Amino acid sequence: MAPPDANLHPVATGRAAETVSQHQNPQDLTFYSAWFCPFSQRVWIVLEEKGIPYQYKEVNPYKKEEHFLQINPRGLAPAVEYRGKAIYESLVLLEFLEDAYPSYKPNLLPSDPSDRAHQRIWIDHIAKAVVPVSMRLTMTQPNEQEKLETARNELYEALRKLQNEIKGTCFAGERFTLVDAVIVPWVLRDYVSAEHRAFKREDVGDGWAEYAKAIETRDSVCRTMSVSERDKAKVIYNRYLGGDAQSEAAKAIKAGRPIP
Amino acid sequence: MAPPDANLHPVATGRAAETVSQHQNPQDLTFYSAWFCPFSQRVWIVLEEKGIPYQYKEVNPYKKEEHFLQINPRGLAPAVEYRGKAIYESLVLLEFLEDAYPSYKPNLLPSDPSDRAHQRIWIDHIAKAVVPVSMRLTMTQPNEQEKLETARNELYEALRKLQNEIKGTCFAGERFTLVDAVIVPWVLRDYVSAEHRAFKREDVGDGWAEYAKAIETRDSVCRTMSVSERDKAKVIYNRYLGGDAQSEAAKAIKAGRPIP
Repeated sequence: MAPPDANLHPVATGRAAETVSQHQNPQDLTFYSAWFCPFSQRVWIVLEEKGIPYQYKEVNPYKKEEHFLQINPRGLAPAVEYRGKAIYESLVLLEFLEDAYPSYKPNLLPSDPSDRAHQRIWIDHIAKAVVPVSMRLTMTQPNEQEKLETARNELYEALRKLQNEIKGTCFAGERFTLVDAVIVPWVLRDYVSAEHRAFKREDVGDGWAEYAKAIETRDSVCRTMSVSERDKAKVIYNRYLGGDAQSEAAKAIKAGRPIP
Repeated sequence: MAPPDANLHPVATGRAAETVSQHQNPQDLTFYSAWFCPFSQRVWIVLEEKGIPYQYKEVNPYKKEEHFLQINPRGLAPAVEYRGKAIYESLVLLEFLEDAYPSYKPNLLPSDPSDRAHQRIWIDHIAKAVVPVSMRLTMTQPNEQEKLETARNELYEALRKLQNEIKGTCFAGERFTLVDAVIVPWVLRDYVSAEHRAFKREDVGDGWAEYAKAIETRDSVCRTMSVSERDKAKVIYNRYLGGDAQSEAAKAIKAGRPIP
C-alpha cells in the first residue's frame, strides 16, 4: 500500500506553477523536485538566481517510483540528471551548480578560500543545528510542555548564532549567497511553528525578523514558492504537527538519527 | 572541575610524534589537532599528502581552553588559523585546503564537476551514515544483544554501500582522494569494534578488507597515526565501550542528535 502522503497535491501551484511551466523543455540538466520540499527549494532558488537552463520534473518522494530510485537510490528529492549522470543531496547540488556553471552569474560562493570556508561553516550549522531542531519543534506535541520549550529555545539559540554572523541585508552583506539559499526555505515555513508552537521571529533577536523578510521576499524565492498556497501544504504540516509524518527526515528526527 | 578526559595522554606518540616534531615552526597555517581524534586526522592526512607547510599545535578539546574557544567557538578539534582567520569542521577544512593551496599536488578532488559531486555524495554518506552508526556500535553495551546486532548490521550496510562504489585500490581508482581521507581514520580504529563488538571487515563484503588495508597502510596515514600505540588510546575507547564517553560526538549520539 502506498504511504498516506503518496496522495498529496501532485504539482506546484501559484507562482511556482508558472516557473514550472517555463521549464518544460529538455536541457542538459533535469531537476527532480517536490513542490513542497524545502531541500528541493534550495536548489530551485539557485537555478533561478543563476539563470541556468533546466527542465523541471515533479516527483513525489513518498512514492519511491522505480525510475526515480535509479537516479537517487536514497529516493529523496531533490536530484539532478546532468548529461547522463545522477547527482543528489541538496548541499552537494548547490556546490555542483557553482562548479558546473561558472559563467552563470552571480557566483553564490565567494572566491576567497577563507570566505568560502566561512560560508560552508554556516551552511553546516544550518544543516546540523537549525533544520533538525526546527523539525523537532514542529513534531513535539503541545502537551509535552517542557520538551516544547527546550526545542523552541534551542531553535532560538541556533538562529541567534547565525544572526550574529549576518553582515547586511543578506548573510554576507548586500549580495545573496549560498547561506541565504540554504536557510530561506525554513524561514518561509516558520509560519507553521509560529501558528502552532509559539515561535516568534522577534524572539530570535535584533535583526532576525528584518533578515527573514529581506530574503523571503527575494524574487528567486517567490518564483519557487508553492506553499504560499497554504491550504495545499496544510496536509503535510498537519502530519508533522500531529507527530505522524512519514518523510525520511521526520522518521530520522523521531529515531534520533541524522536526517538522510 | 575538569572533565575526566582532560587528563588523558597529552601528546602524539610513535610516528605521529615524529611528524609533530617536524612541524613546530610558525607558518601561514596553524593546525590545531587532538592526537587521538579521527576528525583531526582527516585534515592532518591531507596536509601531509599535499606537503602544505603547517605548524602543529596539540589541543585537548575536553579542556575547552579560552584561547582555543576563540578560534573555534564549538571547542572542537580540528581547527585551523590561516593568516589570522579561523576555520573549523573537518569537512570544511578539507575543501579549504583544496581551495587555498591549488598548486600543492595531488589534487584530492577531481576537476570534473559531476565527479566532484560524486565524491561529495559519498563523503556525505560517511558523515551521515558510517560515522554515527560506528560510534553507536561502540557505545552499545554487550548486554543489549538486539541493539548491538542492529547497529552492527547497519554499519555493515553503510560500509557495503560505500564499497560498491570503489573503483580500484582507492575509492576513485588508483589515486588517493578525499573520500579515502574521510573514511580512513575510522578504518584505522575499527579494531576497537572488532575486539569488543564482533565487527569483522570480511563481513562487510568482497573487497572491503583489501580496500581497508590499502588505505590504512598509506604513508600519509601512518605518519599521522598515534593510536598505533594502543595503550595510550585505550583510556579513550574504554569510555566509549563503557558507555560514558564525554566527547561532544558521544553525547550527541546518546541524545539522538547530529554529531556537531
